[in-house]
Amino acid sequence: MRISDLDTPALICDLDILERNIATYQQLISDAGLALRPHIKTHKVPAIAHMQLAAGASGICCQKVTEAEVFVAAGIKDVLISYNIIGQPKLERLSRLARQADVTVAVDSAYAARGISAQAAADSVEVGVVIELAMGNRSGVATPQDAVELGRLVTALPGVRLRGLMGYPTGPDPECLDFFEATITAYRAEGLCVEMVSGGGTATAWQAAAQKPIGFTEHRVGTYIYHDCMQVQRSPHITLDDCALRVICTVVSRPTPDIATIDGGSKTFTNEGLGGEAKAHHIIEYPEARTIKQNEEHGVIDASACPRKPEIGERITVIPYHACVTANLHDTVVGVRGDTVEVIWPILARGRVH
Amino acid sequence: MRISDLDTPALICDLDILERNIATYQQLISDAGLALRPHIKTHKVPAIAHMQLAAGASGICCQKVTEAEVFVAAGIKDVLISYNIIGQPKLERLSRLARQADVTVAVDSAYAARGISAQAAADSVEVGVVIELAMGNRSGVATPQDAVELGRLVTALPGVRLRGLMGYPTGPDPECLDFFEATITAYRAEGLCVEMVSGGGTATAWQAAAQKPIGFTEHRVGTYIYHDCMQVQRSPHITLDDCALRVICTVVSRPTPDIATIDGGSKTFTNEGLGGEAKAHHIIEYPEARTIKQNEEHGVIDASACPRKPEIGERITVIPYHACVTANLHDTVVGVRGDTVEVIWPILARGRVH
Repeated sequence: MRISDLDTPALICDLDILERNIATYQQLISDAGLALRPHIKTHKVPAIAHMQLAAGASGICCQKVTEAEVFVAAGIKDVLISYNIIGQPKLERLSRLARQADVTVAVDSAYAARGISAQAAADSVEVGVVIELAMGNRSGVATPQDAVELGRLVTALPGVRLRGLMGYPTGPDPECLDFFEATITAYRAEGLCVEMVSGGGTATAWQAAAQKPIGFTEHRVGTYIYHDCMQVQRSPHITLDDCALRVICTVVSRPTPDIATIDGGSKTFTNEGLGGEAKAHHIIEYPEARTIKQNEEHGVIDASACPRKPEIGERITVIPYHACVTANLHDTVVGVRGDTVEVIWPILARGRVH
Repeated sequence: MRISDLDTPALICDLDILERNIATYQQLISDAGLALRPHIKTHKVPAIAHMQLAAGASGICCQKVTEAEVFVAAGIKDVLISYNIIGQPKLERLSRLARQADVTVAVDSAYAARGISAQAAADSVEVGVVIELAMGNRSGVATPQDAVELGRLVTALPGVRLRGLMGYPTGPDPECLDFFEATITAYRAEGLCVEMVSGGGTATAWQAAAQKPIGFTEHRVGTYIYHDCMQVQRSPHITLDDCALRVICTVVSRPTPDIATIDGGSKTFTNEGLGGEAKAHHIIEYPEARTIKQNEEHGVIDASACPRKPEIGERITVIPYHACVTANLHDTVVGVRGDTVEVIWPILARGRVH
């Protein structure tokens, strides 16, 4: 079976590039003296996680308990859930998961810590806990003193074991690392555990060497597995040749001589990246083309800058603006080598929203 | 089972509002002398389509052959696919579908028409065809003369039967209706079939009475079933009380006194509507709150204008900015009446991308 046999839109991933990305970042993080813990939110495919582990990754990271269930069921034994677990249904699932794997959870409040502790103690399991430090404005404690107080609480609670600290993204702002350094110093002074200090971010992976001396033990990377146009625009280390994820689309209309409409819109890519100065997606066969609008199932391409225009029925290869949200819209990703279909992976953790 | 028993994020739909929306638009379109053909892209749930048909809808509309397969398998017999069907796999599926239901397809090119004709003739089936008129820049023929030429071609081809015309959206720009009027006049002069002239758009449904005298026979509406904040912002006819679709989320963090982070981000809502002047989503319990950022699994809410701040563990009810793309991210939608869970519908046509 070849790429040309796939109906469109087809989410594909170039396995040569995927394998190279795994090797490159494993080397980068290993050279920095840190363990690499891939975040599976980008691909949601257990088979890819096993490739990452085989290359040297220490475990995986998830955002959702139900995502973690899929990966533990696929044989993975070390999981960090980098997300506050709130609410009884998730707490019960977390306890069950802790019986089957080494599970660590990030918390940033006494509320979250007490919830995990109560359920784990009731279920006679132990859940690892890291304290999340705020690196932006979405979650995390705000000061080293807050982190110490929460660390003390976790140390005192049953059913949970304090393991250290985490944050996202750990850079590029130097204040992020200063916050970690001050907190690690305070933790050591208090005798609080810092056996696990977890940094994160694909872009910040290139500065990971600075994290080890501060006391970091690992780095989490997600999007590196596929890369995308957003990263190419934002990082000097990432090029279009590093982008493994593509969507094969078909030109379905040419409403004007300069416009080509394809069968991939906001339900294929999301609308992220559109409307800005930069080109959102990149079309390999038509590098001068620009997506000017997406309806739900139509992508409207301005081909006025292209010497040759895409014809109706022609298939094109689109590197998406944002790989993580694109993959999340599809049920399968097709692994290809050259033009040959080598594997079809169900995206098993897609839709695992709890 | 009550709403409070559902784990979050939970996609729910208020059945009282859903039923009222079905009745309101059926009345509106019937009063305009037109048939109502709901577009199922908004909900992708056969049970809801059956409710729409029971209220008087004449058939359904889909964008994808594989969506249509789901609804035909659920017993629906009249389907318009308002999308150019290009490529052998889809053409073969279309022929099979035409054996089981009355199927009409929109085309805007000789390429599309010849493809459908060749496969239908080879399979000894008949597929209805309407010519799409360009209402914007995504698809459709550009002039009445182009529509006549394509109509003549379809009339002459085997395996296909010309039925008339369609476009989207048919308004509010009066030039849209002028284009239809001129084309209908030309079709009648040429003796081309206009038994089906299909307009579309939820907002334009309120002007549908103007379409009947021109020669329209039906109107397609999609988002009316759920409504959303985008429509409330854009139409004087639609209010928050008309919005049936909501997402129950949990506050998982309070990184600062004015910020509440919820467990719904871009993988729960998409990022559509964010970054503009207007508030994107609406939180029923905190109408003054504003979503300022979404990461994939975090929604960051600015609650500075709220007299009381949302607490960690609290559940909130979010009316999304765009219902169609939100529903497309979820596997189930829970139908509720008051606080009671009345039905859990699998979103069966989600992921049917071909």
